[in-house]
Amino acid sequence: MAMKLPPALQQLIDAFQILPSVGPKSAQRMALYLLEKDRLGAERLSHSLQQAMNKLDHCKSCRNYAESDLCPICSDAERSTESLCVVESPSDVLALEQGVDFKGQYFVLYGHLSPIDGIGPAELGLADLKRKVEQLSIREVIVATNPTVEGEATAQFIMDMLLEDVVVSRIAHGIPMGGELDLVDGGTLNHALTGRRVMS
Amino acid sequence: MAMKLPPALQQLIDAFQILPSVGPKSAQRMALYLLEKDRLGAERLSHSLQQAMNKLDHCKSCRNYAESDLCPICSDAERSTESLCVVESPSDVLALEQGVDFKGQYFVLYGHLSPIDGIGPAELGLADLKRKVEQLSIREVIVATNPTVEGEATAQFIMDMLLEDVVVSRIAHGIPMGGELDLVDGGTLNHALTGRRVMS
Ligand SMILES: [Zn+2]
Ligand SMILES: [Zn+2]
Repeated sequence: MAMKLPPALQQLIDAFQILPSVGPKSAQRMALYLLEKDRLGAERLSHSLQQAMNKLDHCKSCRNYAESDLCPICSDAERSTESLCVVESPSDVLALEQGVDFKGQYFVLYGHLSPIDGIGPAELGLADLKRKVEQLSIREVIVATNPTVEGEATAQFIMDMLLEDVVVSRIAHGIPMGGELDLVDGGTLNHALTGRRVMS
Repeated sequence: MAMKLPPALQQLIDAFQILPSVGPKSAQRMALYLLEKDRLGAERLSHSLQQAMNKLDHCKSCRNYAESDLCPICSDAERSTESLCVVESPSDVLALEQGVDFKGQYFVLYGHLSPIDGIGPAELGLADLKRKVEQLSIREVIVATNPTVEGEATAQFIMDMLLEDVVVSRIAHGIPMGGELDLVDGGTLNHALTGRRVMS
């Protein structure tokens, strides 16, 4: 049963549903919450959305988000240029920065090779990657694309492109620490098995 | 480990966390999703937030949200003035309108009596409720406050206030005790509504 809401309320509920994993019920709860409990917060969210969309562009060096030419990581002189980590998306950078003690450089592909979708080396900025590796005299490129068919193909392509200049390594994939063997998908299991190390 | 993000991105991630049940991880996913995949959607959400906060106020008759003096329900001449349903929040109106075939009037309290929080009859607009019941010559007031201790006390207070003028009924239990109206499915709501008791 479609209910006639005030248009401004209906439009806000609809707009919230553009967000990932927000359905009609959550969208409604968000809209009513802001109206009833946090109108200042709503203004702040509205303003932050505008600021973010206006100010954020891709870093000229790593393609992650930046407000100026270089992102905070690329403009941090304290970070090592020894190694560079290639990832598929900005959320991967966040996960690595939050969970790992890696102090090198990054490069964000925004996806993986997918000829069927028209995503080739140019769309992933691979020429920029090669240039960055040369300019910073990077010694090791760690390819941390996802362990999917497309991620593997992309990793292979990057390795072929860079192998003459630098060491290229692939991030290890396997069973998560504390994870259970039978809860892990077959692809990961395969990786874990083929990537096994001799114990000593 | 606190990561240095571009300020506009950090502020957007922080702003999303004002929303109910949105933690740091979801907020981050929302911000990156909009930046990468739906910048137009972000503009639309920003605009909708502003419009909603600027345009929506309380309906002069039922206190639900409205863009003009009267909300769509109160200004709908087709709706019956036979009965009026009193609820704690706008989301309850939405739940009833979506799940139940009720074509009468509403009144939204925005809470329940809670002396400890300084919420008395004035804060709930109970004088307006009494006036509305008289002006529209309502015959039956259905009190659909939540079946909690405070909701019951509020129902009792409203009954005492209105009993001389109209029939006052309480929405039937069938809604789980301690539960919230807007989380209940339509069938249960229907049952609760048809099984309402006249209060005495
Ligand atoms: Zn950068
Ligand atoms: Zn109204």
